Amino acid sequence: MSPDASPRSVDAVLFDTFGTVVDWRSGVAAAVAEFAQQHGFDADPGEFALRWRARYQPAMRAVRLGEREFVDLDVLHRENLLATAEELGIALDRVDDAEIDRLNRAWHRLDAWPDAIAGLTRLKRHFIIGPLSNGHTALLTNMAKHAGLPWDVIIGSDLTRAYKPDPEAYLRTAAILDLPPERVMLCAAHDEDLAAAQRAGLRTAFIPRPQEHGPAQRADPEPGGSWDVVARDVPDLAARLLDG
Amino acid sequence: MSPDASPRSVDAVLFDTFGTVVDWRSGVAAAVAEFAQQHGFDADPGEFALRWRARYQPAMRAVRLGEREFVDLDVLHRENLLATAEELGIALDRVDDAEIDRLNRAWHRLDAWPDAIAGLTRLKRHFIIGPLSNGHTALLTNMAKHAGLPWDVIIGSDLTRAYKPDPEAYLRTAAILDLPPERVMLCAAHDEDLAAAQRAGLRTAFIPRPQEHGPAQRADPEPGGSWDVVARDVPDLAARLLDG
Repeated sequence: MSPDASPRSVDAVLFDTFGTVVDWRSGVAAAVAEFAQQHGFDADPGEFALRWRARYQPAMRAVRLGEREFVDLDVLHRENLLATAEELGIALDRVDDAEIDRLNRAWHRLDAWPDAIAGLTRLKRHFIIGPLSNGHTALLTNMAKHAGLPWDVIIGSDLTRAYKPDPEAYLRTAAILDLPPERVMLCAAHDEDLAAAQRAGLRTAFIPRPQEHGPAQRADPEPGGSWDVVARDVPDLAARLLDG
Repeated sequence: MSPDASPRSVDAVLFDTFGTVVDWRSGVAAAVAEFAQQHGFDADPGEFALRWRARYQPAMRAVRLGEREFVDLDVLHRENLLATAEELGIALDRVDDAEIDRLNRAWHRLDAWPDAIAGLTRLKRHFIIGPLSNGHTALLTNMAKHAGLPWDVIIGSDLTRAYKPDPEAYLRTAAILDLPPERVMLCAAHDEDLAAAQRAGLRTAFIPRPQEHGPAQRADPEPGGSWDVVARDVPDLAARLLDG
């Protein structure tokens, strides 16, 4: 840890959520499995979840480039859900819109990685904690209630009107908290996110999530940048920030 | 309680903060007393707090009327602080700006009424809880950390760009939570706030705060409208919503 990332050097520790705090693949796969059984579809739920997620970054691209007005992840996830179903030859035209919406909201009902809540609970005693996610406020609030995430504050992408790694996503979040960027740390399992946060002037912490893409994930994730903190998981991040 | 205000009829219970959840008068008076002693001013801290607060509603009026662009409460509180000092013949021109700012941020460091946290903690297990305040997100986040308020989500006036009782303050908060207004309840100690929330379609709960303006406050506050719930305090509100 660099000396200027000591506990007293930041006021807020914010987290990427999908993949870093919650296990999106298991949660989405479980929802797909339930949906498939209910409607008699033949689908590999894990495969469906991975393909649905693979459309995530490209879908935000048009918003980031300013080619499309900001729409929230419920809108993008739903478009991607329909496209994934079509790709896999699953005909959804006889399924009620309300049931497709319910499946789409699987992204609101994800469980935390087993270590996350203990680590967040400890960090909360010393820092402002919250998500810094591409999720919108309603999604992140529902997720927090579902998973028991003890956030102090939830500033969704609908409020910053920017999708990471757009610098405004980081800068506007810090501004809403009335903190200079260097008093805010982003913790994420993804180098691209941390690199953009670092360019925007935030502190950075990497934690690996080797199971994010499931048991078949090939390589263990290694930190690919010069981050202020590299930790094993959220409790280890808390220990590194607080125990010096 | 009307039958449609039963627990399952709302998803979020939001709170006016200044006066309803936190005791602004004691907190501000204590900060004024410290400041006055430090700088050798002769001021009645309780009187100063009341006069400072008396400028609060008029100050937001220009923003509500669209005559002034939205500025947050740090800006309005600071203008009102200077005007109050002038009114009371206190010359601040030799005091550092940073020390005036620190006094101004007394509004970030207020304590909760003694009943509030237990009631909020119980409500949190069943509802989304948060402030619905004219405070901005940073102020409300700092206040929550200081006072231990267990909010799920903090949507400040800087995000809705509207000051209560402007209907947009209520409607935009519900929209950010992706809830129809009737799934959101506002709890406040002030009829005007509740009346505006009710006109916007929210559910309403009144709790009296007979000490809000200090021990010299003359009449006990009585609910002056037809509110869905009238409770003694926050735990009583929780009991009325949850125990039927």
